[in-house]
Amino acid sequence: MIPFKLTEELITDIENFIETKNNSALLSLLEDIHYADIAEIINELNEDEATYIIKLLESDKTSDILTELDDDVRESILGNLSAKEIAEELDELDTDDAADIVGELPKEMVQRVISEIEDREHAKDIVDLLRFDENSAGGLMAKELVKVNENWNVLTCVKEMRVQAENVTRVHSIYVVDDEGKLKGRLSLKDLLTTSTKTHIKDVYIAKVDYVNVNEKPEEVARIMSKYDLEAIPVIDEIGRLVGRITIDDIVDVIREEAEKDYQMAAGISQDVEADDSIWELTKARWPWLLIGMMGGLGAASIISGFQEALTKFPVLLIFIPLMQATAGNVGVQSSAIVVQGLANDTIKGAIWGRLGKELLLGLVNGLALAFVFLIISHFGFKTTYLESIAVGIALVTVVVNAAVIGTFIPIFLNKRGIDPAIATGPFITTSNDVLGILIYFSIAKVILGF
Amino acid sequence: MIPFKLTEELITDIENFIETKNNSALLSLLEDIHYADIAEIINELNEDEATYIIKLLESDKTSDILTELDDDVRESILGNLSAKEIAEELDELDTDDAADIVGELPKEMVQRVISEIEDREHAKDIVDLLRFDENSAGGLMAKELVKVNENWNVLTCVKEMRVQAENVTRVHSIYVVDDEGKLKGRLSLKDLLTTSTKTHIKDVYIAKVDYVNVNEKPEEVARIMSKYDLEAIPVIDEIGRLVGRITIDDIVDVIREEAEKDYQMAAGISQDVEADDSIWELTKARWPWLLIGMMGGLGAASIISGFQEALTKFPVLLIFIPLMQATAGNVGVQSSAIVVQGLANDTIKGAIWGRLGKELLLGLVNGLALAFVFLIISHFGFKTTYLESIAVGIALVTVVVNAAVIGTFIPIFLNKRGIDPAIATGPFITTSNDVLGILIYFSIAKVILGF
Repeated sequence: MIPFKLTEELITDIENFIETKNNSALLSLLEDIHYADIAEIINELNEDEATYIIKLLESDKTSDILTELDDDVRESILGNLSAKEIAEELDELDTDDAADIVGELPKEMVQRVISEIEDREHAKDIVDLLRFDENSAGGLMAKELVKVNENWNVLTCVKEMRVQAENVTRVHSIYVVDDEGKLKGRLSLKDLLTTSTKTHIKDVYIAKVDYVNVNEKPEEVARIMSKYDLEAIPVIDEIGRLVGRITIDDIVDVIREEAEKDYQMAAGISQDVEADDSIWELTKARWPWLLIGMMGGLGAASIISGFQEALTKFPVLLIFIPLMQATAGNVGVQSSAIVVQGLANDTIKGAIWGRLGKELLLGLVNGLALAFVFLIISHFGFKTTYLESIAVGIALVTVVVNAAVIGTFIPIFLNKRGIDPAIATGPFITTSNDVLGILIYFSIAKVILGF
Repeated sequence: MIPFKLTEELITDIENFIETKNNSALLSLLEDIHYADIAEIINELNEDEATYIIKLLESDKTSDILTELDDDVRESILGNLSAKEIAEELDELDTDDAADIVGELPKEMVQRVISEIEDREHAKDIVDLLRFDENSAGGLMAKELVKVNENWNVLTCVKEMRVQAENVTRVHSIYVVDDEGKLKGRLSLKDLLTTSTKTHIKDVYIAKVDYVNVNEKPEEVARIMSKYDLEAIPVIDEIGRLVGRITIDDIVDVIREEAEKDYQMAAGISQDVEADDSIWELTKARWPWLLIGMMGGLGAASIISGFQEALTKFPVLLIFIPLMQATAGNVGVQSSAIVVQGLANDTIKGAIWGRLGKELLLGLVNGLALAFVFLIISHFGFKTTYLESIAVGIALVTVVVNAAVIGTFIPIFLNKRGIDPAIATGPFITTSNDVLGILIYFSIAKVILGF
């Protein structure tokens, strides 16, 4: 397919059409563009232009566009729409997307928008979904699904299914519930079609069905669905009643967002920001880590000040400060990244002591190899005495081993405490290893060189 | 659902059953366990035990297990199976999974395994898929799909579809091709069922269909499918013929792997490793970055040696080396991470100069704020003169601005050259900023303090 390309010419054309109120040209231009691409266009327009387009197009298209817009753009457009106009958009959306939008509305608006929704059943479902924590299976699920009662016969079942399926974009599975609404299993379409119409559902359904609890974390839902290759999974409440369904497209978003968050944390960015956000937002996201890094740097400065004798007696030691610091930081980040990823993928098994032992050994191998390279280079490249070189080499091995152990221990510790271990791989580990590295370096040099 | 838990007791039970050849106990234990979970169990067993289980279970279950195993475990099990046994597994698998396994076999084995596959059509499809680069849409796609000729009438179409659908796990879409096999569009099941049986397909099909070219990169396929919320996408060859189909479950794997790779690169790990890999593998993956970091550290050592006067006249400057280095490294990683992510998501628009200008401004804001904090702390905490503090402060601002600009420029530059920009966020940027930071620091201090 010819991929859609957002060009400056296209934006200029659209802005001109809006300015001259040339609606027919605008409609025919946008007609063949996918809603996800129109959302990209609107993200580039100003508030008035964006609102103009949303008001111009039909709500079956604009509702989908709204779900794809950047949060701040959507917020400002919704601010220009009446409660009735917003309700019309919500009527077109699946309950999960509708609830996400309602969740972003100002409190005083929510009540009014909900009361304007035409389909009262739909409105009730949206209100139900608002109760759930955004960061849970309940916050991800939609109410749209196809379910049949185990006490129905096949004929009733087929009739009811036809009605229900009208509201469901992709059926995926037919779920079976009992009189209390509890999930009992699922139904194979094939069995349904090859069974006598008088057979009861309870005699043909498959009792084995994967499901998740409404309070389950999105990452766990993502893990289950991708491990078992599921395209949809039913969600049950605390007493086992079928309350919703999560589909794979929502999970793709969870996986993407989770990966982005971990990546940003590893890079020392504390909020979800994008390259095109404002300077203020970007500064807020970066500032905490920069400050922690700075405190680390000042901490290291204090430590070095404490070894005054070294500054005068063995000035050559000072030139290797960056080496110690960089190595400690790198090893710490490497070790922690592997552990964090292992924890996220659930591939870390066995006892914590075994893991630490392995990292210790790994650090020793890497540290000895690095020290070996250092000894050769320092012999030819720097005017260090043998004793000085040996002191630096031993410090290097110790720093590496220490950084590896700390890099492993901190994420495991955070994870046990219920804190997202991804936070550990950022400048947090780098900084603490920087400072510890300097301390270890000078302490070992002091013992060996005796200042 | 009660999540499957891999316990040591379970492994011990299974090992005991294997040792005592208690097949019935083993079969009844494994019967209710999902193939993805059995794969996890087998990953923990030794080669003989693993092979025993694969030979014991039926090939409709073991074929799925094989696709989920760790690469090295699968390789050693396949080494213990005959060509005929492997062919039986392949007969059960979809063509894409089968081709992946054949691609891992030793060359001398491929021919023999292929010739043992019972379903010759299936064997031909697998051979077709082997031609494609693993890192392309062709390498991801399966041959299983439902397609109808535009010249058929609805009756023929329904008959043919029934036959084809037997080999396809999930139908998703019905594709329409012409006599030459070129993709023309898709068919809605609803239209098919509500149209007279004599109508020709060419009169009812929908010409608008998303597709990708067989040479498209997996990341681009993932981007398209997740942007347009597609659960399956057809693949065409160079002259437009429908040759395969990619489903969302394969794309979930691509997204996960891509995210993991970027994360590991950012953490300075150059190969795809897991926490449970051998010490040797882990060392290989980490070593290149450690060596680069070390070279950076030694480079910094040379620079400091070059400023000998500073060591004697202004010893206090030396204690702030870690501060400069840590700040430069952190800012560089932050800037590059945002750009790398923006490039990956295709959210970076506009000219490179605008982007650099923004980072420059951002660096200036952050740098000035950090320098302000530094001046306060150094005044109370360290015995620096006013001039020394000002020199360090100005150096700090310059180092931050420089790191921000470099962190932005390098990924954009690499991307333009067709190199994966993710490589830039690792110790590569940290290291070059470390070294540059020290150089800038001493140069500015030299100008201001005049040594």
